[in-house]
Amino acid sequence: MTENKETYTIGIIGGTGKEGKGLAYRWVQAGHHVIIGSRQAEKAQRAVEELKALLEEGGELEGMENSEAVAACDIAVVTVPYAAHRPTLEGLKGVLDGKIVVDVVVPIVPPKVTKVQMPSAGSVAQEAQEILGENCRVVDAFQNISYERLMNQDEDVDCDVLVCGKSKAAREVVLGLVADTGLKGWDAGPIENAVVVEGMTSVLIGLNIQHKVKASGIRITGISEQE
Amino acid sequence: MTENKETYTIGIIGGTGKEGKGLAYRWVQAGHHVIIGSRQAEKAQRAVEELKALLEEGGELEGMENSEAVAACDIAVVTVPYAAHRPTLEGLKGVLDGKIVVDVVVPIVPPKVTKVQMPSAGSVAQEAQEILGENCRVVDAFQNISYERLMNQDEDVDCDVLVCGKSKAAREVVLGLVADTGLKGWDAGPIENAVVVEGMTSVLIGLNIQHKVKASGIRITGISEQE
Repeated sequence: MTENKETYTIGIIGGTGKEGKGLAYRWVQAGHHVIIGSRQAEKAQRAVEELKALLEEGGELEGMENSEAVAACDIAVVTVPYAAHRPTLEGLKGVLDGKIVVDVVVPIVPPKVTKVQMPSAGSVAQEAQEILGENCRVVDAFQNISYERLMNQDEDVDCDVLVCGKSKAAREVVLGLVADTGLKGWDAGPIENAVVVEGMTSVLIGLNIQHKVKASGIRITGISEQE
Repeated sequence: MTENKETYTIGIIGGTGKEGKGLAYRWVQAGHHVIIGSRQAEKAQRAVEELKALLEEGGELEGMENSEAVAACDIAVVTVPYAAHRPTLEGLKGVLDGKIVVDVVVPIVPPKVTKVQMPSAGSVAQEAQEILGENCRVVDAFQNISYERLMNQDEDVDCDVLVCGKSKAAREVVLGLVADTGLKGWDAGPIENAVVVEGMTSVLIGLNIQHKVKASGIRITGISEQE
Protein backbone atom coordinates (compact mmCIF):
# COMPACT_ATOMS: atom_id res chain seq x y z
CA MET A 1 0.00 0.00 0.00
CA THR A 2 1.58 3.27 -1.10
CA GLU A 3 0.85 6.25 1.10
CA ASN A 4 -0.57 9.29 -0.55
CA LYS A 5 1.34 12.45 0.29
CA GLU A 6 -1.90 14.19 1.20
CA THR A 7 -4.17 12.87 3.88
CA TYR A 8 -7.83 13.75 3.94
CA THR A 9 -10.85 13.53 6.16
CA ILE A 10 -13.10 11.16 4.24
CA GLY A 11 -16.81 10.90 5.09
CA ILE A 12 -18.48 7.67 3.94
CA ILE A 13 -22.23 8.15 3.47
CA GLY A 14 -24.03 4.89 4.23
CA GLY A 15 -20.67 3.55 5.33
CA THR A 16 -21.92 0.66 7.47
CA GLY A 17 -22.25 -1.77 4.53
CA LYS A 18 -19.50 -3.96 3.14
CA GLU A 19 -18.41 -1.29 0.60
CA GLY A 20 -17.98 1.43 3.21
CA LYS A 21 -16.28 -0.80 5.75
CA GLY A 22 -13.88 -2.26 3.16
CA LEU A 23 -12.81 1.17 1.92
CA ALA A 24 -12.57 2.58 5.47
CA TYR A 25 -10.38 -0.34 6.54
CA ARG A 26 -7.80 0.41 3.88
CA TRP A 27 -7.96 4.22 4.03
CA VAL A 28 -7.43 4.33 7.81
CA GLN A 29 -4.29 2.20 7.34
CA ALA A 30 -3.09 4.64 4.65
CA GLY A 31 -3.24 7.46 7.21
CA HIS A 32 -6.53 9.11 6.31
CA HIS A 33 -9.06 10.26 8.91
CA VAL A 34 -12.23 8.32 8.10
CA ILE A 35 -15.75 9.05 9.30
CA ILE A 36 -18.32 6.30 8.84
CA GLY A 37 -21.72 7.89 8.24
CA SER A 38 -25.13 6.30 8.74
CA ARG A 39 -28.73 7.42 9.11
CA GLN A 40 -28.34 6.45 12.77
CA ALA A 41 -25.22 7.55 14.63
CA GLU A 42 -25.34 4.41 16.83
CA LYS A 43 -25.20 2.16 13.78
CA ALA A 44 -22.16 4.09 12.52
CA GLN A 45 -20.57 3.67 15.93
CA ARG A 46 -21.09 -0.09 15.85
CA ALA A 47 -19.37 -0.31 12.44
CA VAL A 48 -16.46 1.73 13.85
CA GLU A 49 -16.07 -0.68 16.82
CA GLU A 50 -16.12 -3.62 14.44
CA LEU A 51 -13.40 -2.09 12.27
CA LYS A 52 -11.26 -1.01 15.23
CA ALA A 53 -11.11 -4.64 16.34
CA LEU A 54 -9.49 -5.45 12.98
CA LEU A 55 -7.15 -2.45 12.83
CA GLU A 56 -4.20 -3.67 14.82
CA GLU A 57 -2.28 -0.44 14.52
CA GLY A 58 -5.23 1.81 15.26
CA GLY A 59 -5.87 4.90 13.17
CA GLU A 60 -8.29 7.79 12.91
CA LEU A 61 -11.83 6.45 12.64
CA GLU A 62 -15.13 7.89 13.84
CA GLY A 63 -18.84 7.25 13.42
CA MET A 64 -21.49 9.94 12.88
CA GLU A 65 -24.92 10.56 11.43
CA ASN A 66 -24.58 11.04 7.61
CA SER A 67 -25.01 14.82 7.48
CA GLU A 68 -22.52 15.34 10.32
CA ALA A 69 -20.04 13.04 8.58
CA VAL A 70 -20.37 15.09 5.39
CA ALA A 71 -20.07 18.42 7.20
CA ALA A 72 -16.81 17.29 8.82
CA CYS A 73 -15.17 15.78 5.73
CA ASP A 74 -12.97 17.02 2.87
CA ILE A 75 -14.15 14.30 0.50
CA ALA A 76 -17.50 12.47 0.62
CA VAL A 77 -17.98 8.89 -0.57
CA VAL A 78 -21.46 7.55 -1.39
CA THR A 79 -21.98 3.83 -0.70
CA VAL A 80 -25.76 3.56 -0.27
CA PRO A 81 -27.88 0.99 -2.15
CA TYR A 82 -29.06 2.23 -5.55
CA ALA A 83 -32.68 2.64 -4.38
CA ALA A 84 -31.47 5.13 -1.73
CA HIS A 85 -29.15 7.09 -4.05
CA ARG A 86 -31.48 9.92 -5.10
CA PRO A 87 -33.23 10.52 -1.73
CA THR A 88 -29.91 10.39 0.16
CA LEU A 89 -28.25 12.98 -2.10
CA GLU A 90 -31.32 15.23 -2.15
CA GLY A 91 -31.26 15.20 1.65
CA LEU A 92 -27.53 16.02 1.85
CA LYS A 93 -27.35 18.47 -1.07
CA GLY A 94 -26.67 21.57 1.04
CA VAL A 95 -23.90 20.08 3.14
CA LEU A 96 -22.23 18.41 0.10
CA ASP A 97 -21.94 21.72 -1.74
CA GLY A 98 -18.47 22.37 -3.16
CA LYS A 99 -17.02 18.97 -2.23
CA ILE A 100 -15.58 16.11 -4.25
CA VAL A 101 -18.20 13.36 -4.11
CA VAL A 102 -16.94 9.85 -4.89
CA ASP A 103 -19.92 7.84 -6.11
CA VAL A 104 -19.51 4.08 -5.64
CA VAL A 105 -23.15 3.18 -6.32
CA VAL A 106 -24.02 0.78 -9.16
CA PRO A 107 -27.42 0.87 -10.90
CA ILE A 108 -28.30 -2.78 -10.37
CA VAL A 109 -32.04 -3.29 -10.77
CA PRO A 110 -33.25 -6.79 -9.72
CA PRO A 111 -34.22 -9.19 -11.14
CA LYS A 112 -32.26 -8.27 -14.31
CA VAL A 113 -28.93 -7.82 -12.55
CA THR A 114 -26.88 -8.85 -15.60
CA LYS A 115 -28.49 -6.27 -17.93
CA VAL A 116 -27.23 -2.68 -18.04
CA GLN A 117 -30.02 -0.37 -16.86
CA MET A 118 -29.13 3.28 -16.33
CA PRO A 119 -31.12 6.11 -14.74
CA SER A 120 -32.55 8.70 -17.11
CA ALA A 121 -29.59 11.03 -16.44
CA GLY A 122 -27.40 8.48 -18.26
CA SER A 123 -25.65 7.01 -15.22
CA VAL A 124 -25.68 7.16 -11.44
CA ALA A 125 -22.80 9.67 -11.47
CA GLN A 126 -24.65 11.97 -13.86
CA GLU A 127 -27.77 11.70 -11.70
CA ALA A 128 -25.70 12.73 -8.67
CA GLN A 129 -24.17 15.63 -10.60
CA GLU A 130 -27.66 16.82 -11.63
CA ILE A 131 -28.95 16.66 -8.04
CA LEU A 132 -25.90 18.27 -6.43
CA GLY A 133 -25.26 21.02 -8.99
CA GLU A 134 -22.16 22.29 -10.75
CA ASN A 135 -20.40 23.30 -7.55
CA CYS A 136 -19.83 19.65 -6.65
CA ARG A 137 -17.44 17.39 -8.51
CA VAL A 138 -18.85 13.87 -8.78
CA VAL A 139 -16.34 11.10 -9.54
CA ASP A 140 -17.14 7.40 -10.10
CA ALA A 141 -14.78 4.78 -8.63
CA PHE A 142 -14.70 1.28 -7.10
CA GLN A 143 -17.80 0.03 -8.99
CA ASN A 144 -16.21 -3.22 -10.15
CA ILE A 145 -14.31 -4.56 -7.15
CA SER A 146 -15.12 -7.19 -4.55
CA TYR A 147 -15.40 -5.37 -1.23
CA GLU A 148 -15.10 -8.45 0.96
CA ARG A 149 -11.53 -8.75 -0.28
CA LEU A 150 -10.64 -5.25 0.90
CA MET A 151 -11.20 -6.37 4.48
CA ASN A 152 -8.28 -8.78 4.36
CA GLN A 153 -5.00 -6.93 4.11
CA ASP A 154 -3.26 -9.90 2.50
CA GLU A 155 -5.90 -10.56 -0.11
CA ASP A 156 -5.03 -9.69 -3.70
CA VAL A 157 -7.90 -7.83 -5.33
CA ASP A 158 -7.34 -8.83 -8.95
CA CYS A 159 -9.20 -5.88 -10.45
CA ASP A 160 -8.26 -2.39 -11.58
CA VAL A 161 -10.38 0.65 -10.73
CA LEU A 162 -11.75 2.90 -13.48
CA VAL A 163 -12.14 6.51 -12.34
CA CYS A 164 -14.26 8.96 -14.30
CA GLY A 165 -16.06 12.17 -13.51
CA LYS A 166 -16.27 15.90 -13.54
CA SER A 167 -12.86 17.66 -13.44
CA LYS A 168 -9.48 16.12 -14.17
CA ALA A 169 -8.13 17.55 -10.90
CA ALA A 170 -10.85 15.77 -8.91
CA ARG A 171 -10.14 12.52 -10.78
CA GLU A 172 -6.48 12.84 -9.82
CA VAL A 173 -7.35 13.22 -6.13
CA VAL A 174 -9.53 10.11 -6.38
CA LEU A 175 -6.78 8.18 -8.21
CA GLY A 176 -4.60 8.93 -5.16
CA LEU A 177 -7.31 7.49 -2.89
CA VAL A 178 -7.50 4.39 -5.11
CA ALA A 179 -3.72 3.90 -4.79
CA ASP A 180 -4.13 4.22 -1.02
CA THR A 181 -6.44 1.18 -1.00
CA GLY A 182 -3.67 -0.83 -2.68
CA LEU A 183 -5.47 -1.01 -6.03
CA LYS A 184 -4.44 0.28 -9.46
CA GLY A 185 -6.62 3.11 -10.76
CA TRP A 186 -6.95 4.51 -14.28
CA ASP A 187 -8.34 7.85 -15.46
CA ALA A 188 -11.32 6.71 -17.55
CA GLY A 189 -12.25 10.24 -18.60
CA PRO A 190 -15.24 12.57 -18.29
CA ILE A 191 -18.48 11.89 -16.44
CA GLU A 192 -20.17 10.84 -19.71
CA ASN A 193 -18.02 7.67 -19.50
CA ALA A 194 -19.69 6.66 -16.21
CA VAL A 195 -22.11 4.45 -18.17
CA VAL A 196 -19.14 2.22 -19.07
CA VAL A 197 -17.69 2.15 -15.56
CA GLU A 198 -21.05 1.45 -13.87
CA GLY A 199 -22.37 -0.83 -16.63
CA MET A 200 -19.28 -3.05 -16.44
CA THR A 201 -20.61 -4.26 -13.08
CA SER A 202 -23.59 -5.91 -14.81
CA VAL A 203 -21.23 -7.57 -17.30
CA LEU A 204 -19.07 -8.89 -14.43
CA ILE A 205 -22.10 -10.15 -12.47
CA GLY A 206 -23.13 -12.03 -15.62
CA LEU A 207 -19.66 -13.58 -15.86
CA ASN A 208 -19.74 -14.50 -12.15
CA ILE A 209 -23.01 -16.38 -12.70
CA GLN A 210 -21.89 -18.09 -15.93
CA HIS A 211 -18.54 -19.23 -14.54
CA LYS A 212 -19.65 -19.86 -10.92
CA VAL A 213 -17.08 -17.48 -9.43
CA LYS A 214 -17.52 -14.72 -6.87
CA ALA A 215 -15.30 -11.94 -8.10
CA SER A 216 -14.49 -11.60 -11.78
CA GLY A 217 -12.82 -8.29 -12.53
CA ILE A 218 -10.98 -6.31 -15.19
CA ARG A 219 -7.39 -5.30 -15.77
CA ILE A 220 -6.12 -2.68 -18.19
CA THR A 221 -3.36 -4.05 -20.44
CA GLY A 222 -0.81 -2.60 -22.86
CA ILE A 223 0.49 0.16 -20.57
CA SER A 224 3.82 -0.55 -18.93
CA GLU A 225 4.11 -0.37 -15.15
CA GLN A 226 7.12 1.96 -15.16
CA GLU A 227 5.49 5.17 -16.24
CA MET B 1 -5.16 -20.75 -32.72
CA THR B 2 -7.86 -23.27 -31.87
CA GLU B 3 -9.99 -24.38 -34.75
CA ASN B 4 -13.70 -24.13 -34.41
CA LYS B 5 -15.44 -27.40 -35.24
CA GLU B 6 -17.85 -25.57 -37.54
CA THR B 7 -16.63 -23.57 -40.47
CA TYR B 8 -18.71 -20.78 -41.94
CA THR B 9 -18.87 -18.55 -44.96
CA ILE B 10 -18.23 -15.12 -43.44
CA GLY B 11 -19.05 -11.97 -45.41
CA ILE B 12 -17.23 -8.84 -44.24
CA ILE B 13 -19.15 -5.68 -45.17
CA GLY B 14 -16.68 -2.84 -45.76
CA GLY B 15 -13.95 -5.42 -45.37
CA THR B 16 -11.16 -3.53 -47.13
CA GLY B 17 -10.15 -1.52 -44.04
CA LYS B 18 -7.71 -2.65 -41.38
CA GLU B 19 -10.49 -4.23 -39.26
CA GLY B 20 -11.84 -6.37 -42.08
CA LYS B 21 -8.43 -7.42 -43.36
CA GLY B 22 -7.15 -8.30 -39.88
CA LEU B 23 -10.18 -10.48 -39.11
CA ALA B 24 -10.16 -12.08 -42.59
CA TYR B 25 -6.46 -12.93 -42.22
CA ARG B 26 -7.07 -14.93 -39.06
CA TRP B 27 -10.41 -16.51 -40.07
CA VAL B 28 -9.05 -17.84 -43.37
CA GLN B 29 -6.24 -19.52 -41.43
CA ALA B 30 -8.82 -21.08 -39.09
CA GLY B 31 -10.48 -22.73 -42.08
CA HIS B 32 -13.41 -20.39 -42.72
CA HIS B 33 -14.46 -19.26 -46.19
CA VAL B 34 -14.17 -15.48 -46.10
CA ILE B 35 -15.68 -12.99 -48.54
CA ILE B 36 -14.34 -9.44 -48.38
CA GLY B 37 -17.16 -7.04 -49.33
CA SER B 38 -16.81 -3.49 -50.58
CA ARG B 39 -18.97 -0.94 -52.36
CA GLN B 40 -16.75 -1.65 -55.39
CA ALA B 41 -15.96 -5.26 -56.27
CA GLU B 42 -12.53 -4.24 -57.67
CA LYS B 43 -11.56 -2.71 -54.36
CA ALA B 44 -12.56 -5.91 -52.57
CA GLN B 45 -10.50 -7.87 -55.10
CA ARG B 46 -7.42 -5.75 -54.41
CA ALA B 47 -7.75 -6.41 -50.64
CA VAL B 48 -8.01 -10.13 -51.41
CA GLU B 49 -4.79 -10.06 -53.48
CA GLU B 50 -3.03 -8.21 -50.70
CA LEU B 51 -4.12 -10.78 -48.12
CA LYS B 52 -3.31 -13.75 -50.35
CA ALA B 53 0.29 -12.53 -50.54
CA LEU B 54 0.45 -12.87 -46.74
CA LEU B 55 -1.39 -16.19 -46.45
CA GLU B 56 1.41 -18.66 -47.04
CA GLU B 57 -0.83 -21.70 -46.81
CA GLY B 58 -3.61 -20.26 -48.97
CA GLY B 59 -7.23 -20.63 -47.90
CA GLU B 60 -10.70 -19.72 -49.07
CA LEU B 61 -10.89 -16.00 -49.73
CA GLU B 62 -12.92 -14.02 -52.27
CA GLY B 63 -13.83 -10.40 -52.98
CA MET B 64 -17.31 -9.17 -53.93
CA GLU B 65 -19.57 -6.15 -53.87
CA ASN B 66 -21.13 -5.81 -50.36
CA SER B 67 -24.63 -7.07 -51.19
CA GLU B 68 -23.25 -10.08 -53.06
CA ALA B 69 -20.93 -10.86 -50.15
CA VAL B 70 -23.89 -10.78 -47.77
CA ALA B 71 -26.09 -12.90 -50.03
CA ALA B 72 -23.39 -15.59 -50.20
CA CYS B 73 -22.52 -15.67 -46.49
CA ASP B 74 -23.76 -17.52 -43.39
CA ILE B 75 -22.60 -14.79 -41.03
CA ALA B 76 -22.15 -11.08 -41.88
CA VAL B 77 -19.60 -8.83 -40.18
CA VAL B 78 -19.96 -5.02 -40.32
CA THR B 79 -16.67 -3.09 -40.32
CA VAL B 80 -17.64 0.23 -41.93
CA PRO B 81 -16.79 3.62 -40.38
CA TYR B 82 -19.42 4.84 -37.90
CA ALA B 83 -20.70 7.55 -40.28
CA ALA B 84 -21.55 4.83 -42.83
CA HIS B 85 -23.20 2.46 -40.34
CA ARG B 86 -26.86 3.45 -40.76
CA PRO B 87 -26.89 3.99 -44.56
CA THR B 88 -24.96 0.76 -45.16
CA LEU B 89 -27.36 -1.35 -43.08
CA GLU B 90 -30.44 0.34 -44.54
CA GLY B 91 -29.15 -0.52 -48.01
CA LEU B 92 -28.46 -4.17 -47.12
CA LYS B 93 -31.51 -4.77 -44.89
CA GLY B 94 -33.25 -7.20 -47.26
CA VAL B 95 -30.27 -9.40 -47.93
CA LEU B 96 -29.21 -9.47 -44.25
CA ASP B 97 -32.63 -10.76 -43.16
CA GLY B 98 -32.41 -13.77 -40.85
CA LYS B 99 -28.61 -13.75 -40.48
CA ILE B 100 -26.28 -13.30 -37.54
CA VAL B 101 -24.75 -9.83 -37.96
CA VAL B 102 -21.50 -9.22 -36.08
CA ASP B 103 -21.21 -5.47 -35.52
CA VAL B 104 -17.63 -4.28 -35.02
CA VAL B 105 -18.38 -0.56 -35.41
CA VAL B 106 -17.55 1.87 -32.59
CA PRO B 107 -19.42 5.17 -32.14
CA ILE B 108 -16.38 7.43 -32.14
CA VAL B 109 -17.41 11.01 -32.91
CA PRO B 110 -14.46 13.37 -33.52
CA PRO B 111 -13.19 15.57 -32.04
CA LYS B 112 -14.36 14.15 -28.67
CA VAL B 113 -12.97 10.66 -29.26
CA THR B 114 -12.35 9.99 -25.56
CA LYS B 115 -15.95 10.76 -24.52
CA VAL B 116 -18.66 8.10 -24.77
CA GLN B 117 -21.27 9.27 -27.27
CA MET B 118 -23.97 6.77 -28.24
CA PRO B 119 -26.60 6.92 -30.99
CA SER B 120 -30.18 7.52 -29.82
CA ALA B 121 -30.92 3.77 -29.96
CA GLY B 122 -28.51 3.40 -27.01
CA SER B 123 -25.60 1.85 -28.90
CA VAL B 124 -24.47 1.00 -32.42
CA ALA B 125 -25.64 -2.61 -31.96
CA GLN B 126 -29.11 -1.51 -30.86
CA GLU B 127 -29.27 0.87 -33.84
CA ALA B 128 -28.41 -2.05 -36.15
CA GLN B 129 -31.05 -4.24 -34.48
CA GLU B 130 -33.68 -1.50 -34.94
CA ILE B 131 -32.81 -1.08 -38.65
CA LEU B 132 -32.58 -4.80 -39.45
CA GLY B 133 -35.60 -5.99 -37.46
CA GLU B 134 -36.19 -8.87 -35.08
CA ASN B 135 -35.38 -11.54 -37.64
CA CYS B 136 -31.68 -10.63 -37.49
CA ARG B 137 -29.46 -11.32 -34.51
CA VAL B 138 -26.98 -8.48 -33.99
CA VAL B 139 -23.92 -9.29 -31.87
CA ASP B 140 -21.16 -6.84 -30.83
CA ALA B 141 -17.56 -8.07 -30.85
CA PHE B 142 -13.96 -6.93 -31.49
CA GLN B 143 -14.62 -3.28 -30.50
CA ASN B 144 -11.60 -2.99 -28.22
CA ILE B 145 -8.75 -4.68 -30.06
CA SER B 146 -5.91 -3.38 -32.14
CA TYR B 147 -6.47 -4.64 -35.68
CA GLU B 148 -2.96 -4.03 -36.92
CA ARG B 149 -1.83 -6.74 -34.52
CA LEU B 150 -4.15 -9.31 -36.06
CA MET B 151 -2.19 -9.12 -39.31
CA ASN B 152 0.92 -10.58 -37.70
CA GLN B 153 0.39 -14.20 -36.77
CA ASP B 154 3.06 -14.06 -34.08
CA GLU B 155 1.83 -10.89 -32.42
CA ASP B 156 0.19 -11.27 -29.02
CA VAL B 157 -3.00 -9.21 -28.87
CA ASP B 158 -3.12 -8.46 -25.16
CA CYS B 159 -6.87 -7.83 -25.02
CA ASP B 160 -9.95 -9.95 -24.42
CA VAL B 161 -13.07 -9.61 -26.57
CA LEU B 162 -16.44 -8.84 -24.98
CA VAL B 163 -19.35 -10.33 -26.93
CA CYS B 164 -22.90 -9.13 -26.35
CA GLY B 165 -26.08 -9.14 -28.36
CA LYS B 166 -29.43 -10.61 -29.20
CA SER B 167 -29.71 -14.37 -28.52
CA LYS B 168 -27.37 -16.48 -26.41
CA ALA B 169 -27.06 -19.00 -29.25
CA ALA B 170 -25.82 -16.27 -31.62
CA ARG B 171 -23.35 -15.06 -28.96
CA GLU B 172 -22.01 -18.60 -28.69
CA VAL B 173 -21.42 -18.80 -32.44
CA VAL B 174 -19.56 -15.48 -32.29
CA LEU B 175 -17.51 -16.62 -29.28
CA GLY B 176 -16.36 -19.50 -31.51
CA LEU B 177 -15.32 -16.99 -34.19
CA VAL B 178 -13.42 -15.00 -31.55
CA ALA B 179 -11.53 -18.14 -30.48
CA ASP B 180 -10.69 -18.74 -34.15
CA THR B 181 -8.88 -15.39 -34.29
CA GLY B 182 -6.69 -16.55 -31.38
CA LEU B 183 -8.31 -14.19 -28.88
CA LYS B 184 -10.20 -14.92 -25.68
CA GLY B 185 -13.88 -13.96 -25.79
CA TRP B 186 -16.39 -13.54 -22.98
CA ASP B 187 -20.19 -13.55 -23.07
CA ALA B 188 -20.98 -10.01 -21.92
CA GLY B 189 -24.73 -10.53 -22.00
CA PRO B 190 -27.72 -9.01 -23.79
CA ILE B 191 -27.69 -6.29 -26.43
CA GLU B 192 -28.48 -3.65 -23.76
CA ASN B 193 -24.87 -4.17 -22.56
CA ALA B 194 -23.48 -2.97 -25.91
CA VAL B 195 -23.07 0.52 -24.45
CA VAL B 196 -20.36 -0.88 -22.16
CA VAL B 197 -18.60 -2.87 -24.90
CA GLU B 198 -18.64 0.01 -27.40
CA GLY B 199 -18.04 2.74 -24.82
CA MET B 200 -14.95 0.98 -23.50
CA THR B 201 -13.25 1.96 -26.77
CA SER B 202 -13.45 5.65 -25.81
CA VAL B 203 -11.99 4.87 -22.38
CA LEU B 204 -9.10 2.95 -24.01
CA ILE B 205 -8.44 5.72 -26.56
CA GLY B 206 -8.21 8.13 -23.62
CA LEU B 207 -5.70 5.83 -21.89
CA ASN B 208 -3.69 5.51 -25.13
CA ILE B 209 -3.42 9.31 -25.33
CA GLN B 210 -2.60 9.79 -21.61
CA HIS B 211 0.05 7.07 -21.53
CA LYS B 212 1.41 7.54 -25.08
CA VAL B 213 0.75 3.93 -26.11
CA LYS B 214 -0.96 2.54 -29.20
CA ALA B 215 -2.99 -0.34 -27.91
CA SER B 216 -4.23 -0.42 -24.34
CA GLY B 217 -6.75 -3.17 -23.80
CA ILE B 218 -8.72 -5.06 -21.17
CA ARG B 219 -8.51 -8.52 -19.66
CA ILE B 220 -11.15 -10.26 -17.57
CA THR B 221 -9.71 -11.59 -14.29
CA GLY B 222 -10.88 -13.92 -11.53
CA ILE B 223 -12.04 -16.77 -13.80
CA SER B 224 -9.67 -19.71 -14.03
CA GLU B 225 -8.46 -20.84 -17.45
CA GLN B 226 -9.38 -24.48 -16.93
CA GLU B 227 -13.15 -24.23 -17.14
